[in-house]
Formats: sequence, C-alpha cells, structure tokens
Amino acid sequence: MSTMKLTLLTDFYELTMMQGYFKCGMHQKVVFDAFYRRNPDDGGYAICAGLDQVIDYVKRLTFSKEDIDYLRSLNTFDEDFLQYLADFHFSGDIYAIPEGTVIFPREPLVKVVAPIMEAQLMETAILNIINHQCLIATKAARVCYAAKGDGIMEFGLRRAQGPDAGTYGARAAVIGGCIGTSNVLTGQLFDVPVLGTHAHSWIMSFPDEYTAFKKYAEYYPDNCVLLVDTYDTLRSGVPNAIRVFTEMKAKGWKPKKYGIRLDSGDLAYLTKKARKMLDDAGFADASIAASSDLDEYVIQSLKSQGACIDSWGVGTNLITSKNTPAFGGVYKLAAIEGPDGSLIPKIKLSENTDKITNPGNKQVWRIYDRQYHKIRADLISMDDEVFDPEQDLIIFDPKETWKKTKIKAGTYDLRPLLVPIFKNGECVYESPSVLEIRDICTREKDSLWDETKRFVNPHEMYVDLSDKLYKIKADLLEELSMKALQSE
Amino acid sequence: MSTMKLTLLTDFYELTMMQGYFKCGMHQKVVFDAFYRRNPDDGGYAICAGLDQVIDYVKRLTFSKEDIDYLRSLNTFDEDFLQYLADFHFSGDIYAIPEGTVIFPREPLVKVVAPIMEAQLMETAILNIINHQCLIATKAARVCYAAKGDGIMEFGLRRAQGPDAGTYGARAAVIGGCIGTSNVLTGQLFDVPVLGTHAHSWIMSFPDEYTAFKKYAEYYPDNCVLLVDTYDTLRSGVPNAIRVFTEMKAKGWKPKKYGIRLDSGDLAYLTKKARKMLDDAGFADASIAASSDLDEYVIQSLKSQGACIDSWGVGTNLITSKNTPAFGGVYKLAAIEGPDGSLIPKIKLSENTDKITNPGNKQVWRIYDRQYHKIRADLISMDDEVFDPEQDLIIFDPKETWKKTKIKAGTYDLRPLLVPIFKNGECVYESPSVLEIRDICTREKDSLWDETKRFVNPHEMYVDLSDKLYKIKADLLEELSMKALQSE
Repeated sequence: MSTMKLTLLTDFYELTMMQGYFKCGMHQKVVFDAFYRRNPDDGGYAICAGLDQVIDYVKRLTFSKEDIDYLRSLNTFDEDFLQYLADFHFSGDIYAIPEGTVIFPREPLVKVVAPIMEAQLMETAILNIINHQCLIATKAARVCYAAKGDGIMEFGLRRAQGPDAGTYGARAAVIGGCIGTSNVLTGQLFDVPVLGTHAHSWIMSFPDEYTAFKKYAEYYPDNCVLLVDTYDTLRSGVPNAIRVFTEMKAKGWKPKKYGIRLDSGDLAYLTKKARKMLDDAGFADASIAASSDLDEYVIQSLKSQGACIDSWGVGTNLITSKNTPAFGGVYKLAAIEGPDGSLIPKIKLSENTDKITNPGNKQVWRIYDRQYHKIRADLISMDDEVFDPEQDLIIFDPKETWKKTKIKAGTYDLRPLLVPIFKNGECVYESPSVLEIRDICTREKDSLWDETKRFVNPHEMYVDLSDKLYKIKADLLEELSMKALQSE
Repeated sequence: MSTMKLTLLTDFYELTMMQGYFKCGMHQKVVFDAFYRRNPDDGGYAICAGLDQVIDYVKRLTFSKEDIDYLRSLNTFDEDFLQYLADFHFSGDIYAIPEGTVIFPREPLVKVVAPIMEAQLMETAILNIINHQCLIATKAARVCYAAKGDGIMEFGLRRAQGPDAGTYGARAAVIGGCIGTSNVLTGQLFDVPVLGTHAHSWIMSFPDEYTAFKKYAEYYPDNCVLLVDTYDTLRSGVPNAIRVFTEMKAKGWKPKKYGIRLDSGDLAYLTKKARKMLDDAGFADASIAASSDLDEYVIQSLKSQGACIDSWGVGTNLITSKNTPAFGGVYKLAAIEGPDGSLIPKIKLSENTDKITNPGNKQVWRIYDRQYHKIRADLISMDDEVFDPEQDLIIFDPKETWKKTKIKAGTYDLRPLLVPIFKNGECVYESPSVLEIRDICTREKDSLWDETKRFVNPHEMYVDLSDKLYKIKADLLEELSMKALQSE
C-alpha cells in the first residue's frame, strides 16, 4: 500500500452515488461515522488500528488519467462528472480515535465531516483498512494476554489473505503486542523487529540433522534456535541440539539467544520432556519456542498444563483472526447540512434494534476511575457538549435506559477520544511509529480490568449516550415511526 | 500488487537459511512442492488460482538498493551474501496447475525446480498468493453452486483483510464463478465487470425515500435497482419503488435492468411479499436482488424456501472465506540434487501420517472417464513416468493400500496437470484473462460429479500414487525408521 494509490479501491456504487449527488447539485456537508457493532471472538474490547494507512490513502486520493479513462470506458459516467473527478481532492475534516486505543462497539472510530461526494467516495477504503487492522490488532492483544508476558512472534505471512493482509496484518499484530514478525517487508516499511531462524527444509538439505544443526550454530552463534521436530523430537532433535550446544560451549560460545523450537506434536508433553533434557545437560538457560496452530485458547491451555515454553510463534490463527475473520465495521450517515448551514442529525432504522444508528455530529468520551486509572465507562455525546469532572455525571444504558449510574464528582477523569486528523483537507496529525503505538496500546490495555479482558463471558463495558444525544435519537425515532403509521 | 515489488514479502528465516546455504557453498538444484492438505469448508474439491500473480512476483524478484540497505541494517548478513542478493535473479524452472483447475489435497499445485537458495526464497510469497486466491476461488465456486445459475455478485471489499485481499480476492471470486464485483480496482486491473447501484446513505440524503428513488431512476434509467429497506421494506420501500417504476413507465421507460434490492430482514418472507407486490403492479420482469450475510448455506436454504431472489450480492463470508479463512497450503522440499546430478527424493516425517510428504520430482495426472468426461481419480507419479490409456491402469488408495481399483483400457483419458511456467528463469507461459479463466473453471466444475460438489459429506476424490512413487516413499520411510531405531 505504501507504493500504491488506492483511489479506485472503492465499491462501484460510491461512484454512481457521487455522480447522482453531482447531478443533483448536492454539495452540502455531511457527517459519516465508521463504527463496529460486536467485538471479535465475543471479547470485551477491541484495539483501534489502521489510521496511518487511512491518512496515506486520503493524501493520495486523486484520479489519474488512467483512472478517468477506465471509468469513461464503463459507459456510466458523463464527461462533466469525469472532469470533476479529474480535479478531485479531499477538502473536508476527519476525526479519529488514535491507533492503539482500546475501543468498544458503537463508538465512532473515524468521523468524516466533508461535502457529501467526498465523504461518500471514502467509505469503502476507510472500512477496508480499519476493519482489517482493528481485527488483527485485537486478536494480537488477546493472544498476548494469554501468554502472560511471554513474547509472541507473528509468523502468519504465508497463510495471510494476500500480500497486504500479511504486511499490514503484521503491523497491526505488533500494535496489539507482538514482539516482532517474520515478515521482512513489514520490518522494512515500519521499522519493527523481524524474527526467525530456519525451517524443516534446512534440516532436510543436509545429510543428517546433527550436521544441519552444527552448521546453523556456526553461522548464527548469536541467535541459535534449532528446530527439533523434523524427524523425531525427543529421540533425535533434542539430543542433536544438546550435542551441538555442548560442542559450541566447549569452544567458549557465549550466545545472546539460543534454544530449540517445536512445530508439531503434543507441545505440553514434549516441552516438559525437552526442558528436563536441556536442564540435565546444563542448558537451563536455553529457551523453548513453540509454534503449530496456536491461538489464545491453546496458549492458555498449554500454560495451565505447565508446558515449558518461553516464546510463541503464532501464525494462521492470528493473521486471519480465524474464529472471527471480519471486524464488521460500517460507515453510516449521521448528519447532513441544512439550508442554514447547521448539521441536521440523521438516523437509519432497522428491524434489528442493534443496527439503529446514533444520529448527529458526535464525540466519544472515556471516563476513567481517578483512583485506579481504569476505564469506568464510555460516553457518546454531541460534538458541542462539555462535561466537568468536578460535577456528578449520570449515565444510563443506551438499550435499557432505566439502568442509571451516578459517577460522583471528583472520582473520575474524562478524555475525548476523537482527535482531529484532517482539517479542510490538510493533514494535521502525525502518526507515532508502530513501536510507539505498541507502547500506547500497552497502557491502553492496562486501563482495562481483567474482567473485560477474559475470554469467557467478559464484562461488557458500558458505552452510554449523553442526555442530549439520547433525546435527539428518541425524537428522530418517534418522527419516523409516526411517518410510517401515516403511510399505511 | 500490480505496482508493488514483493521481494521482501518473505519470512526472515528464508533469508537466514539462504545465507547459510551460501556460506556452505550449496548451489545444488532442489525440488519444492506447494500443496494443501484439506479442502476448505470440509468440501470435496478446491479451485486453483493466483498463478498470474506468482508469475508477476517471480518476474520482479530482484533486490533494490533500498532492500539491500535495509537487510544490511539488521546486522545479520555478510557483505558477500548481500552482494549475491544484489545480483539475484531467478534462474530455475517452475511448473504449475493452471488457474481455474479443480484440485484436490496433496497434489503439487506449484513445483519449483531451482538452485536451493532461489527455491527457498520464494516459499513465503508463493504460499501467500496461492493460499489466498485458491481459498476465495473455492468459496466462490461453492456459493455459485448453491445459487444454481443465478448471478452471484462479489460485494465484500469493505470487509476484506486489507486492500489486496479485496482486490485479488475479487479476482479469485470471478474465477470461481461470480458474474462481477463491486471493487472498481479489480475491474480496472483485470477487466472484469463492476457492479452496484446505491446504498442506504443515498436514500437518507434526500428528504424522503420516494424522491431518492425518483432521482436515481432519472439518472440511471438503464440499471435501476432500488434499495428498499432503509425505512420499512414492505410499507415504504417496495410501494415507493413501484410508484417510481409506474411513473417511469408512463414516460415510455424501457430499462435494460431494473428491480429492487433487499439488504436486511427475513429475506424469504420479504422477497415473496415483494415479488407479489411487483407482479400485481405489472412489474413481473423486475428483478429482486438480495444481500445480507449470505453464504452458500443461506442461499441454499433461501432457495429451498422458495425465496423470490434472482441475483445475490455476497460480501463478508465470501471475501474472507469466513468458516475456513486459511487454505493451509505448504511448501515442502521433495528432492535435492546429488553429486551425480540426479535428483534424490526427500521426505519429511511427522507423527501425523497425513503430514508425511510425497518425495521426488513429480507430475499429477487427471484420469477422466471417457464416456462421461467426469473425473475418475487423480494420480501422482514421478515426473518421468508415462501412462498409456489404451492399457489397464491399477490405482490404489495412498493410505489404505490394499484398496485397489482397475481402470480398464480404453475407458479413460489422461491429462498431466502440471505445465511449464518458467524454464531457466524465463517465463514460458501466458496467462489467460480472468474471464477466460472463469470459462475454464466452469468446464472444470462440470468435470465433477454432484456427489463431490455437495456441501454435506462430499465424496472424497481419490488421489492415488503411482507404483513407482509409492515404492520410493515406502523405502524412504523404512530407511528413516531404521535410522531412528539404531539411534536409540
């Protein structure tokens, strides 16, 4: 993506709608919200990621001559509209929740405030980028939580859904907490650690396993993790590794990092046996890395069984978010400029109450418990509302509105989550580096109670609506409902 | 990918192994096979896709100065090896099964015969590309099978795992049978039909639904599919659509394509009601398109319920292959050049019998029933074997070898599936266009019995080993097993 312009990475209907607005002479400003409805893996939270690529996309959002020629060839677009596209550049405002932030369902993650044609065009690419990276960052956070501080290496490139899924997926995985990735391109593009030693093919290319290990240790004495399961882990692999370590030690070897890796078999049983063999041979400081269809549940199970594993290579299940391979983010119209220039809130109905949108130009507030610095709740308000943490705050459940909670004055702090990214088409935000975002994410995850981070029946964080927003929403629902009755 | 060089789209360990081979002076030729072990969704087959992007990758496989500088910065590689990389280009042979072909587990899809360093480097990118596109092409074939000839539109870009997943996923979906995609970039890159009309936001941008429909019909009279579920499908959406169709008809409207689309609710109930309303109003030729979390199972269920749907927009579940989001292809060393220049077969053991590889330089033969032109079985042989369909052929199950079948002389035809793609580093293959590949794929799917295409307990196609390959494999297993016993 770093070298690719994504202007035509859009659904065709964005362009047919744009031309429709163009023909209607509709240039009014609108508000679109990108948000999601359900945490992946039935979890209690998600991690925001992908903003830097959205910024890159918006900055390059122009139509080349080839793009215009291609669109002309579709016999759907008029020359005046194509001329408009040829001159297109983004002129609006974008607000977003910074990468690495903990997020919850229904919160606007990206808010576009721009002329309707511009805001409409951007829908598909924004969703594509945000949906993908939020998904993988969230999965990585879950996997890292299961590993309780052990290093998680992202190893999934070969099973990712195409080159970008591997490359930006690895970026998101590092944001979520991984110590590094096997993907060299991600290392090059984002300056994150790249990791790995050798595969089974290395072992099979030599006359025997011992020779393969010995050669590897000679060439890479400082980072010598030997893969021991090509032929037989306990009868051949571990004994040959110990033989090589012993010979290297006799020559005065002082490795920075050394050990073994297992990629198959019963990892609980084999790592305990291998640990004892290594310890008995005097290699108590040799690390044991494991891979092989791992995810947060397998890691949690292996740790509870006392498996002797220090670091984990996680591939397919992380890079595809296997159990929940789509984040499900949507991009919905929330307001449209009226004749007087004010933004008129809009709502989308649905037979499914969960799918009814929150209208208007909004802000998201995070309410922290002042004593523990943990998240107490989130509050979605209209953009122009202000709150004073030195006053009591009454919040209520957006679905079951009789459930009210008073948060006492002086016991909480507030932080607005949506920050300005573009103003009048100019980028006003500088993204931190990926490793800086990982640090931010670490602090963000620390702001969650374990009850929200657990995998089974996590505590659902409250995301409440302000009084003002709630009333606007209720009035719109009432109005539409009356209209529907009248039309019968 | 069309504009991106993917040289560093590789696992770090490919490069550390390459340097190891370089230091050992290992330049011998090897054979690597890319194959998969299990059909997605527990199906009976898969569809091969992605080869054109593999070719593109191999053609551009050189290290730029920036790549070399980046690798140097990792403090892992020596200058002589970096110089080797700076001069790198692929010099070997590649064979592959053409795109659109029906494939089965354990068959080599791509075979690389090249100096070990070159063949090793390519592992990750080949797997990434092939795994992704085979996965989505297979899912598309399943979805199209459920739709029994109705058009399937690929609509998943916003939920795809990044830009490439959307773009190359849509390419693969068209190969698998989709009539087109919403993704304009895929249309531009691969000359496939792009489809779509408008979203809920179009409706919400106008004072009322009727006005929104009317404007859309005016601007796009030839392709006027109106989305009827923004407010209330049966009370508002369908009546407003009928009102607009009636007004258009009064003006002498002769649309190429018109109708309605539903994106939510009980599609069986709503489409039957909507069909009746349209028919009663004189619009029996109006089409009904449906979307909303569809997959092959939902489509099969809706059709069995008599839902009145003519065309289907399939998004998330297709573009992510939701139930099986990874294809699981692997790339295994199968042979290595000996001192005399011959290729010595190699095998990888595993405690899991399914994971034991097939050794040697191989070919895959498709055995067709001469009378019905359907696939009878596939046969994996050594590359130098020839078979005469005018002689009896005895094949046996690779796992339960006592299960033998005689295919009588004159009743079958044979086709070798692996064809030359690169020879001595030069591409010798020209990829058909994507729409041509879709036609190939249609014929390929027709070569399967319905028993293999069904979703529940499909018939497992036999993929047998030739006598010669079976004996080589058995001898290698025996040899390794004796070695293991001796080492105890």
